[in-house]
Amino acid sequence: MSDAPKTDPTPIPANASDNPAPFAFELKKTDGRARRGAIRTPHGTVQTPAFMPVGTQATVKAMFMGHVEATGAEVVLGNTYHLMLRPTAERVNRLGGLHKFMNWNKTILTDSGGFQVMSLAQLRKLDEEGVRFQSHIDGQKYHLTPERSVEIQGLLGSDIQMQLDECIKLPASREEVQRAMELSLRWAARSRQQFETMGGPAKGQALYGIVQGGDVGDLRIRSAEELGKLPFEGYSVGGLAVGEPQEVMLEMLDITLPAMPEDKPRYLMGVGTPDDLLESVKRGIDQFDCVMPTRAGRHGLAYTRYGKVNLKNARHQDDHRPLDEASDCEATHHYSRAYLHHLVRTGEGLAAMLLTWNNIHYYQTLMREMREAIEAGRFDDFYQETKENWARGDIAAL
Amino acid sequence: MSDAPKTDPTPIPANASDNPAPFAFELKKTDGRARRGAIRTPHGTVQTPAFMPVGTQATVKAMFMGHVEATGAEVVLGNTYHLMLRPTAERVNRLGGLHKFMNWNKTILTDSGGFQVMSLAQLRKLDEEGVRFQSHIDGQKYHLTPERSVEIQGLLGSDIQMQLDECIKLPASREEVQRAMELSLRWAARSRQQFETMGGPAKGQALYGIVQGGDVGDLRIRSAEELGKLPFEGYSVGGLAVGEPQEVMLEMLDITLPAMPEDKPRYLMGVGTPDDLLESVKRGIDQFDCVMPTRAGRHGLAYTRYGKVNLKNARHQDDHRPLDEASDCEATHHYSRAYLHHLVRTGEGLAAMLLTWNNIHYYQTLMREMREAIEAGRFDDFYQETKENWARGDIAAL
Repeated sequence: MSDAPKTDPTPIPANASDNPAPFAFELKKTDGRARRGAIRTPHGTVQTPAFMPVGTQATVKAMFMGHVEATGAEVVLGNTYHLMLRPTAERVNRLGGLHKFMNWNKTILTDSGGFQVMSLAQLRKLDEEGVRFQSHIDGQKYHLTPERSVEIQGLLGSDIQMQLDECIKLPASREEVQRAMELSLRWAARSRQQFETMGGPAKGQALYGIVQGGDVGDLRIRSAEELGKLPFEGYSVGGLAVGEPQEVMLEMLDITLPAMPEDKPRYLMGVGTPDDLLESVKRGIDQFDCVMPTRAGRHGLAYTRYGKVNLKNARHQDDHRPLDEASDCEATHHYSRAYLHHLVRTGEGLAAMLLTWNNIHYYQTLMREMREAIEAGRFDDFYQETKENWARGDIAAL
Repeated sequence: MSDAPKTDPTPIPANASDNPAPFAFELKKTDGRARRGAIRTPHGTVQTPAFMPVGTQATVKAMFMGHVEATGAEVVLGNTYHLMLRPTAERVNRLGGLHKFMNWNKTILTDSGGFQVMSLAQLRKLDEEGVRFQSHIDGQKYHLTPERSVEIQGLLGSDIQMQLDECIKLPASREEVQRAMELSLRWAARSRQQFETMGGPAKGQALYGIVQGGDVGDLRIRSAEELGKLPFEGYSVGGLAVGEPQEVMLEMLDITLPAMPEDKPRYLMGVGTPDDLLESVKRGIDQFDCVMPTRAGRHGLAYTRYGKVNLKNARHQDDHRPLDEASDCEATHHYSRAYLHHLVRTGEGLAAMLLTWNNIHYYQTLMREMREAIEAGRFDDFYQETKENWARGDIAAL
């Protein structure tokens, strides 16, 4: 059926949740550099390329998890930084793990906590051992090391865990980029050791290494090559979408991806806009996460197949049409733009509930369509059509 | 089947929404003074006694209307004051009416706007003609008269409309109470005239008169008797739960209800706690509305059959049990108290979504159980059991 390199002799069943087995990645098909695959975790199968809605504090903001599932999402992301502060990893563990806690029985990926320590915490102090910081909530002191991060993620019961790394803002000097990348490599080895000590592989869980190197091509390549020597189940591309133009990000992907193992999933962290997803899948990325669809939903912005719609705009106030007549999302087709505009303008919670749902639905639809296009060997056509639809702009005026 | 006085020779079918017919009230059964009935409107049948969730700005805050319906609610309330400001009655009318606008195909009751003009608007000036005020949002000037209020409610397409009245805060002098009550009577006649001019009765809609008279028994009786001479489809008891103790409210019901027509629905406005509902049904009230279950849900408070639970309290942080193990509400039994506590403490929107849903579900369950108790002629037993459950307090400790 597929002409892609097989990395797993046994195809992954559609739903493996009742069949505990080792973590696995199957690359089913390629179309150009775009990849169609599947990831097996202790909580089922994730069809890739996949977008992972962000469930920061054990909730995808303003959504019921049943609706998240109904959009087609097979994996959500949890934030180690937030969860270690409240309700704490130990408490989540006592309560039966993060899946049970947040009522989500599919795959969970957690980050290492490092990124948010750097963006949210107070009085940060980073050294070889790890990072000391104070909680942004109550000033309580914490010490996050590569080992502690993996321990926390294990306590949460995360299916796909991330190594602690140092992610720096761009622009930065080559020296600074190199220092952070090399530190991240040493932390990668310590993280891997801890993951194996905790029995992660035997539980079917995964630990991903994170490629750093900022916008410096040869550092990216060295990071990818060094990480490839460690037996990670997958590899992330970190430190992008942190202030640089999209062209720089895509150039870094062009440089980095060929240096990464082909037979492991590739996760581009914290990305991005629908256009970022399209461009990155084209280059061979398998997994994404981003707060954009959820955050936009709380700010009156809707993603549709004809681009972004700002429901705050008064031009919607008499518009009886739904956001997207062709959408099969319940949040989208039962309500007029006039009603959505009213909810946004009056600050009603239902605005965030409906628009977040719409946006996650749109992101999942885009991913599904990309998967289908790769399967059909028509990714380039899909890429063109999708760009044309976005360029056409919001659905034609009344 | 029933030994209650029949007021409508044709029993109301279970769902009359496809069968446009005059507004009707059928009193099916009485048990002591408690009444079991049904109201037929252009949008279906409302089994009474009924609790009406408040949908202030064309949304029951933090809920999907599908979930409101699933709790058993057959009617929701819309606020004329809020809707006349945004998005305006004319706009709602152009968009097909309030039912379509907010995606609710069952009965809608609207208030007259008067209560919120008095509590929210700026620079109010009330005279015989009506009330002039400025919007609390942008200072825009409005003139609300009895005629305009009915006109707005007609534009919204409200099934059950309220006359404009003057509702004063208690305590107040007898003179002040009498003046406001007499003005409300004159406005009642003007409201009725306008309702008939607009063809409300032919559309199967209802206009309710509102009994005022504060905490002065003889004024309440006179208000009820005078209103009874006008052909209203139903009667509200207004001006209670505005600061007086519960005993005063119940005493006023004891005095007022015997003076009100038996063959028309009786609606106690803006009430109340579960205990208020139980006490008022016992005295013969058929309809209620209150922001309490929705507002409490946004503040971490849950109503259960064992009383009110404050999820903010740290004692819930390790409690793996659901809010109420016997509840059949999806919002209640999929989530631990520890998780609800976490959501409340972290300020997540899902806290309001789940607790509001739980609370509306509890209110509707209480109403259904009261209806069943009246049907079975065991309201007094139910009254005792329910009070005992509440007094028992929150579900036994771990």
